[in-house]
Amino acid sequence: MTKRLTGIAASPGIALAQAFRLQNDHYEPVAEKVDDKDLEILHFRQAVEEARQELEEIKELTEQRMGSAKAEIFEAHLMLLEDPDYIDAIIESIEAESMNAEYKLHEVASSFIEVLSRMDNELLRERAADVRDVTGRIMSKLRGVSYAAIAAINEPCIVIAEDLTPSDTAQLNLDYVLGFVTEVGSRTSHSAIMARSLEVPAVVGAGEGAAEIVTGTMIILDAVEGTVLIAPTEQEIEAYQARKAAYDERRAALRKLLGEPTLSSDGHHVELAANIGSVEDLQKVLANGAEGIGLFRTEFLYMGRSSLPSEEEQFQVYKHVLERMDNKPVVIRTLDIGGDKELPYMKLPTESNPFLGLRAVRLCLSQKDLFRTQLRALLRASSYGQLKIMFPMIAVMDELLAAKQLLQEEKEKLVQEGIQVADNIEVGIMIEVPAAALAADFLAKEADFFSIGTNDLIQYTMAADRMNETVSYLYQPCHPSILRLIQMVIQAAKKEGKWVGMCGEMAGDEVAIPILLGMGLHEFSMSAGSILPARALIKETSQQEWAGYTQQILAMSSQAQIKQFVEHKTRSDLT
Amino acid sequence: MTKRLTGIAASPGIALAQAFRLQNDHYEPVAEKVDDKDLEILHFRQAVEEARQELEEIKELTEQRMGSAKAEIFEAHLMLLEDPDYIDAIIESIEAESMNAEYKLHEVASSFIEVLSRMDNELLRERAADVRDVTGRIMSKLRGVSYAAIAAINEPCIVIAEDLTPSDTAQLNLDYVLGFVTEVGSRTSHSAIMARSLEVPAVVGAGEGAAEIVTGTMIILDAVEGTVLIAPTEQEIEAYQARKAAYDERRAALRKLLGEPTLSSDGHHVELAANIGSVEDLQKVLANGAEGIGLFRTEFLYMGRSSLPSEEEQFQVYKHVLERMDNKPVVIRTLDIGGDKELPYMKLPTESNPFLGLRAVRLCLSQKDLFRTQLRALLRASSYGQLKIMFPMIAVMDELLAAKQLLQEEKEKLVQEGIQVADNIEVGIMIEVPAAALAADFLAKEADFFSIGTNDLIQYTMAADRMNETVSYLYQPCHPSILRLIQMVIQAAKKEGKWVGMCGEMAGDEVAIPILLGMGLHEFSMSAGSILPARALIKETSQQEWAGYTQQILAMSSQAQIKQFVEHKTRSDLT
Repeated sequence: MTKRLTGIAASPGIALAQAFRLQNDHYEPVAEKVDDKDLEILHFRQAVEEARQELEEIKELTEQRMGSAKAEIFEAHLMLLEDPDYIDAIIESIEAESMNAEYKLHEVASSFIEVLSRMDNELLRERAADVRDVTGRIMSKLRGVSYAAIAAINEPCIVIAEDLTPSDTAQLNLDYVLGFVTEVGSRTSHSAIMARSLEVPAVVGAGEGAAEIVTGTMIILDAVEGTVLIAPTEQEIEAYQARKAAYDERRAALRKLLGEPTLSSDGHHVELAANIGSVEDLQKVLANGAEGIGLFRTEFLYMGRSSLPSEEEQFQVYKHVLERMDNKPVVIRTLDIGGDKELPYMKLPTESNPFLGLRAVRLCLSQKDLFRTQLRALLRASSYGQLKIMFPMIAVMDELLAAKQLLQEEKEKLVQEGIQVADNIEVGIMIEVPAAALAADFLAKEADFFSIGTNDLIQYTMAADRMNETVSYLYQPCHPSILRLIQMVIQAAKKEGKWVGMCGEMAGDEVAIPILLGMGLHEFSMSAGSILPARALIKETSQQEWAGYTQQILAMSSQAQIKQFVEHKTRSDLT
Repeated sequence: MTKRLTGIAASPGIALAQAFRLQNDHYEPVAEKVDDKDLEILHFRQAVEEARQELEEIKELTEQRMGSAKAEIFEAHLMLLEDPDYIDAIIESIEAESMNAEYKLHEVASSFIEVLSRMDNELLRERAADVRDVTGRIMSKLRGVSYAAIAAINEPCIVIAEDLTPSDTAQLNLDYVLGFVTEVGSRTSHSAIMARSLEVPAVVGAGEGAAEIVTGTMIILDAVEGTVLIAPTEQEIEAYQARKAAYDERRAALRKLLGEPTLSSDGHHVELAANIGSVEDLQKVLANGAEGIGLFRTEFLYMGRSSLPSEEEQFQVYKHVLERMDNKPVVIRTLDIGGDKELPYMKLPTESNPFLGLRAVRLCLSQKDLFRTQLRALLRASSYGQLKIMFPMIAVMDELLAAKQLLQEEKEKLVQEGIQVADNIEVGIMIEVPAAALAADFLAKEADFFSIGTNDLIQYTMAADRMNETVSYLYQPCHPSILRLIQMVIQAAKKEGKWVGMCGEMAGDEVAIPILLGMGLHEFSMSAGSILPARALIKETSQQEWAGYTQQILAMSSQAQIKQFVEHKTRSDLT
């Protein structure tokens, strides 16, 4: 019988292909004495040389396909092959003990990995993953088997992994990778967000059953329903091929909405914008008809490197994005580091509860030089498009005033230096801390706009880590408490004549959209892939009608009740 | 010149005494060859024997003074002296290498401590602290110096420490310890809470300057202002003696309010209750004229042991507290473990953000057996006084309904078993998650009362860990966002005819009290030592007058503004 796994549909789509199992090589060699230790060392040196050649090839391939930044990881792997603590130590150990190379490779690498893993330093801990990866590659050469490497994929497949790291996803070749399945993860884990951003179908959190999928097994990935079929029958394959065709057809219908404005059925206009994490996302943004960028997460500029980006580097990126967006609004969020995102080179102290710690604007206000550099880069870029600057994690008014003050100071300096700065830059804030939502009436006097960051707002309002599966039942975007906060924020902004957007996952949620439209949200910012379905939904929804439901919805006591109400109403709208 | 440190006045009072520096022994012996290794081993064995005798004495003393539970830590220390991995390893190492005992003790203990510290197991990590402590004691014997141990204090002093652990505080002899100063900590750290509970003056977070205080130095501890004077002049000592006398006089005046009811100046009655963490706190509660217990934190029953407490054990404690309180209301909170409180023997998974994790009622609902045991113990105790049961960390209605359902099931079972259960037990919830405050109107239909837990409510509303000093500027009890949530909760409860208490630190804050009184808070629960000052303040405050200020206060945009308003009004009330 076909085995069926249920997980979280993290990025919609249907795919049928063979499984490609990523790095699950738990091979443990046994210790053996060898008769000819020189031959064994030669054998080992050959394996290292083969690994080197393979790495050179993958590096070149990645460079061509995805740019030199993405290829850097392989440079690190190549350098490891020169490391005396590693390769030479293994050779000396074979020499000294006349033991087999497989065992000695395993032994030396394991203790190396263990030492690195225990280090209280993120960079060194990442290095442990590199040693594990390179060791696996050399081991596969010793054993004469092929080493699973995501960048080497060259035929259509569905990738199966425990989880995908940012460096794994960097190497995904979307010409061949039709989708992926991970054992762990939630709708808001990195791999899920990446999948939506790349528009590749993905089921995450499929559980331990996914660990048993062997490379080459036929897989049906239904990332609409969140199911994975392992070794399906012919009938199932036919049925899903038909379903995939229907799905693709619906997608094609959506593409017709590409150039259209976003109007509700009663002619109310809202803005549908995209969230981006890097310059590479821009193509999808333009291809999906976004009316602007509602959230540009700048932390990706600071990650995966060994020092802070310079003002000039940042300026070039901001300028590029503004130019590509051709005078459409671009909301750039200042650095939101801390929480689940670390910068090893900044050597920040470890926190017991990083989500409740010195993150985002709190960190920027405590390290003003870093903040000023980013503000200068933003200001310099402002004359190349319609820039809006947004401060994350504002909790209290003093933080907003302090950030605005620094911005003003840098602006004055630039003007004195004769550098052009736009004079119509809107300065807004994320509303993601409950305190800010509750005091939105005051903040609306000082901010030009609000963007509600629902991922964090829900996490704090529910006091439930959004990455922690044991409390995931509390991640309820349509809980009355969350909707009440959102309503407060929109009302407060309206009173001061300011606009309100939303840039959390909720903005693309089909249950939430009619409610938010009714409440008067002005801008919805989401993954590029969600824009067209959202536009189609809004086209069928009456703003006036849903405005009339707001009070009724806010008087309901549970998310379940509210969801049921919305589903009932939208179904009856469609019939 | 007198050196002056500024810290946080964690528990009020003034004390003048010599400093007693706790465990700051960073002595590092140098390696030396010894001529006669047998003599060296003998010397080491003698030191161990002296340490054993000292430990036996301290253990007995602690048993007599504070009960056998508190003395258990010394039993663990004594057992360490029998550990072959420790003592025998040192002797063997002296034997093998003819090295000096001091160095070998240091070397073996250091590697032992390092191994234990790295373990992913709380119990073993605590064991590292024991090894450090015992090693320090043996080392002092080898060196012929006396070993600083808190339980051995036998003359009046002010304890100076980096921080005090719960086991340190367990050993404080209040006949001699007149106050303490810690380098780290905040108003809500354990040592601060303990200080208030023990009513011993304390300044915490006094910074690195405190590390330089040497045992025997004269110290003035002003835990009203939060300052510490090191080696003060004669004039300063005289001035502070006068200040202390005035302070003591004021305290004496407060004692006159002991038996009085808590009435505002216009005759409005509120209940002043105490927060307790164990049975030992009861004496202070009664001595300070509490009208009830507003929060009995039951997690202390589960901590500092190696397995869960039985139903019978719990029953005996609850019964004892109810009987001692002589039919005054006693609110017992069900287990609030997780967050910053761990139970090593439960082997819960490590969480990235424990404050946002599986804690309190979330954990209890996921481990129903543990929860049912506590509920049965509570129900059985209910016929011995006026019990009210309170569930912590309720975020959504479903959690409250599930907890009530379990309580009902256990009640029915007990009734069937013929065990007496009171039929008027009120069942309430903590309001400490913002979502619960925002949906208080729904929750008030299902809960008999609310108790606002401001420590957590502020932490989540501000998204700022209350133990993290880098974001402590966001711990603002009188921020408009916090006051608005409190107002919502009180209004919602009033509408359903339910009462609202507060059991966070804020309930005893003199700026907050008039505001809360004006909002209509029914019960204020605080450290026993704060009750009489609160009663005196309420006696001078008009409920009607402050009710009239509520809207005006809620329209103010910052805590600074609100504090200024309150201080201005209360000063003018007094003149």
